Amino acid sequence: MSYIQELGKKAQAARPVLAMSSTLVRNKVLYAIAQELRQACDEILTANARDMEAAAERGIPGPMQARLKLTAEKIEGIARAAEDVATLPDPVGVVRSGGTRPNGLRIRRVSVPIGVVAMIYESRPNVTVDAAVLCLKSGNVCILRGGSEAIHSNIALVAVMRRAVERCGLPADIIQLVEDTDREVATQLMRLNGYVDLLIPRGNTGLIQSVVKNATVPVIETGAGICHVYVDKAADLDMALNIAHTGKISYPAVCNALETALIHAHVAEALLPKLTEKLAASGVTIYGCPRTLAIVPHIAAATDESFATEYNDLFMNIKVVDSIEEAMAHIAHYGTHHSDAIVTDDYKAAQLFIATVDSAAVYVNASTRFTDGGEFGMGAEIGISTQKLHVRGPMGLNELTTTKYIIEGEGQTR
Amino acid sequence: MSYIQELGKKAQAARPVLAMSSTLVRNKVLYAIAQELRQACDEILTANARDMEAAAERGIPGPMQARLKLTAEKIEGIARAAEDVATLPDPVGVVRSGGTRPNGLRIRRVSVPIGVVAMIYESRPNVTVDAAVLCLKSGNVCILRGGSEAIHSNIALVAVMRRAVERCGLPADIIQLVEDTDREVATQLMRLNGYVDLLIPRGNTGLIQSVVKNATVPVIETGAGICHVYVDKAADLDMALNIAHTGKISYPAVCNALETALIHAHVAEALLPKLTEKLAASGVTIYGCPRTLAIVPHIAAATDESFATEYNDLFMNIKVVDSIEEAMAHIAHYGTHHSDAIVTDDYKAAQLFIATVDSAAVYVNASTRFTDGGEFGMGAEIGISTQKLHVRGPMGLNELTTTKYIIEGEGQTR
Repeated sequence: MSYIQELGKKAQAARPVLAMSSTLVRNKVLYAIAQELRQACDEILTANARDMEAAAERGIPGPMQARLKLTAEKIEGIARAAEDVATLPDPVGVVRSGGTRPNGLRIRRVSVPIGVVAMIYESRPNVTVDAAVLCLKSGNVCILRGGSEAIHSNIALVAVMRRAVERCGLPADIIQLVEDTDREVATQLMRLNGYVDLLIPRGNTGLIQSVVKNATVPVIETGAGICHVYVDKAADLDMALNIAHTGKISYPAVCNALETALIHAHVAEALLPKLTEKLAASGVTIYGCPRTLAIVPHIAAATDESFATEYNDLFMNIKVVDSIEEAMAHIAHYGTHHSDAIVTDDYKAAQLFIATVDSAAVYVNASTRFTDGGEFGMGAEIGISTQKLHVRGPMGLNELTTTKYIIEGEGQTR
Repeated sequence: MSYIQELGKKAQAARPVLAMSSTLVRNKVLYAIAQELRQACDEILTANARDMEAAAERGIPGPMQARLKLTAEKIEGIARAAEDVATLPDPVGVVRSGGTRPNGLRIRRVSVPIGVVAMIYESRPNVTVDAAVLCLKSGNVCILRGGSEAIHSNIALVAVMRRAVERCGLPADIIQLVEDTDREVATQLMRLNGYVDLLIPRGNTGLIQSVVKNATVPVIETGAGICHVYVDKAADLDMALNIAHTGKISYPAVCNALETALIHAHVAEALLPKLTEKLAASGVTIYGCPRTLAIVPHIAAATDESFATEYNDLFMNIKVVDSIEEAMAHIAHYGTHHSDAIVTDDYKAAQLFIATVDSAAVYVNASTRFTDGGEFGMGAEIGISTQKLHVRGPMGLNELTTTKYIIEGEGQTR
C-alpha cells in the first residue's frame, strides 16, 4: 500500500465518525482550532521562517514570497476566520425537499457531507486552514496537498489543527496533510478513486488544467477567469470608466478581475482617452485593437493571444466593437464562463446580455469583482467554479455537501 | 472536421436559440412530437421491422429483441409520455435563491439549461424519444447515440421529432442522432470537449464503466445497483418476507431491484425457510452463505463474487449476519451507493442505518424498488445517479439545468 493510499484509508476510516458528529461538536473544534492557532503562534512563525529562508535561497519571486509569509497579525486573521465559520449555519442535515407520497411513504432529501475532499493548492499557507475549516464545518474529511515551498508552515498548521481536533474527541485523521511534496504523489492523489470523493484544485491555470487532465476522481474546476466588461452605446460613461478601471486595478491577481474591456464604437472616442489615461496612471499596460489604437495611438497593439490571456496582473486589453452582438460573440469566443458585465442604460440591451452570455455570473452596471462567496452573502467560499455541474460560481459550505434520500414506510412494496 | 465535430458544431449553433425559447414554444414542440409520432406510426414500425429482422438474423437474445420491438401501442405510450412531460413545470428560469445585498446589488441565482447533453444508450428505441423530450423540456440540445441494433428505428424516430421541431419554428438541430454506429465515433463523442456539456450513459455496467473511463467531458454516472435489504432482529417478519421477495421478483432487470438479503441470526431460522421457498417458487436461484446453507441446505453456495454481482435477473444472495454493524459493513463493501433498506421495528436501529449507510436512497420498512423519478414525484427521470456531485438518485428535469447568477446594480465597484 502506497503512502497516499494509506492517507486515503485513514481518511475513509475517519469519515463516518465526522459525518455523524453534531453541529455543536464541529463548532467546538473550530473554536478550539482558533485558540490553538493563537497559542501556537510562535511555533507556526518559526516553521514559516524556515520556508521563507528556503524561498529566499531559491530566489522565489517577491510577490510569491509575500503570499508565503505569515505574521502574528495574519495568524490572528486566520484564527478569526475559523471562528467566523463556526457562526455560519450548519450545511449538513438540512431537509432540502420532502413530503408524503400517495402510498404513504415519507420521503426527505437531506444534505449530507460529500465524504473525503482533497485539495491541491499553492503557496499561501492560510489556504491550509481555510480549506480544513470549511471541510470540517461541512462534515468532510480533508486531504491537503500544498506546495513544497510552504511545507514547513503547512506541517505546523496541520499539527496545531489536529491537536484541537483530538482535544475535542474527534479523530485527528479528519485533517490530513500530504507531507511528501513529490509531484508523483500529487498525481497519485488525483487518481485515488474509492478514497477521494472530490478533488478541488486551487492555483494558477497550469495547476488546474493539470488536475483536470490527470484526475480520475471527480474534480471541481475553479478559478480561471478571463472577465469582460462591455460598455454599450447607451452606457453612463462615468460609471463605465469607474467599473472598467477598478475592475482591473482593485485586485488584479484574482480571478474576478477584468482582463478585457469591449467598447461600443459610438462611445469609443468619448471614453477611450479618459479610460486609458486612468489605467496608465494606475500602472496598467494596455493592449488595444487597431480601432482603439486609431483613437489612443500611444498604447501597444493587442494580438489574438492577448484576448485569450488571463493576466492576473496590471495588463488589460481594449477592443472597439460595432454592436452588443459583436461584444457577446467575443465573450463567447475568448471568455472562460466566469464573470462578465455590461454597462448600459438600455433595458433591452441589458436583458439580451443577461439571457445570452453563458457565464457563472452576469452583471448589469456593476463590477465583476463581486463574484465572491463573501460578497454574495455565503459567508465563506472554497473557490469559484467555472463548470456547470454541481456548483457554478462561488462554492460555499452548501456546495460541500451532497444529498441522501431517506424513505420511511410501513412495508410498502411495488 | 470529423463527423462528430460537425454534429457538435451544429448543436452549439442551435443551443442559444433553444435556451432562449419560451416555455410555451417548448411545450408546443412536445405536443407536436406526440402528434407526429402518432401520424408516422406506420413509418416507424416499418423501420423497426428492419431492426427486428437484423436482430433475428444476428441471433440477438430474446429479452433484447423484446426490448427492441415497437408496436402501435408502445408508440402511443411514447407519444403520451411526451405530452405528460409538456404538463410538467418548466425547470428553466426558476429563481433558486436571491436577494439584495447591503450595497444595493440585486442578486438572483436562476436555473438555465446545461447546454448540449449527449446520451449513449442501448437497445430500447423509446429511450431515443424519452431523452430528446426531457432535454427539449429543459432547454438542452441533445446528441443521441443509440445502439447499432436499433439504428433504423432511431433514424425514423429522430426524423419524426425533427419534423415536429421545425414545424414549431425551432432549428431541427436541437435533436441530433449519431447515425454512424461505429464504436470509434462513440469514443469521439465522449471526448468532444467544448461542444458537449454533459454526457449521460444509460445501459449495462460495461457500457457505463467504458464511458466513465474514456470520457473527458463531464459525465453523470447512472444506474449500477447492487441493492440490499437488511432484516433486523426486531423486524416484522411478514413485512421482511414481502419486501425481500417483491424487491427481487417485481422487475429484476432494473437497477433498484434487490441483489442481496442480509438476515440477522436471531430471525434466520424463522425467516429463511419461508423466504427461500417463496423466491424459488418465483423462479429465483438463490446463493447462500455457509450459515444460510446450514438452515436451508438445498440452495447453492454464495462466493465473494456473488455478493459483488449485479444480476439484473432472477438470482439472489442471502447472508446471515450477527449484527446491524456487520450488515452495514457488508453494504459498505459490496454496495454501489444506490438503494439499501432496513426492515426493523427498533427505533435506534432505523436511525443508525439511516445515518450510516452511504447510499443515494436509504429505506426503512419499504422496498428499494421505489427509487425512481416517477415514484418520487418528479414526473420523469433520465436516469438514476449513483455519484455524489450535481445529482444523487433520480435525475429529473431540475437536474438537467445548471444556474447562472444575475447581478444588477447602478455602478457598484469594489
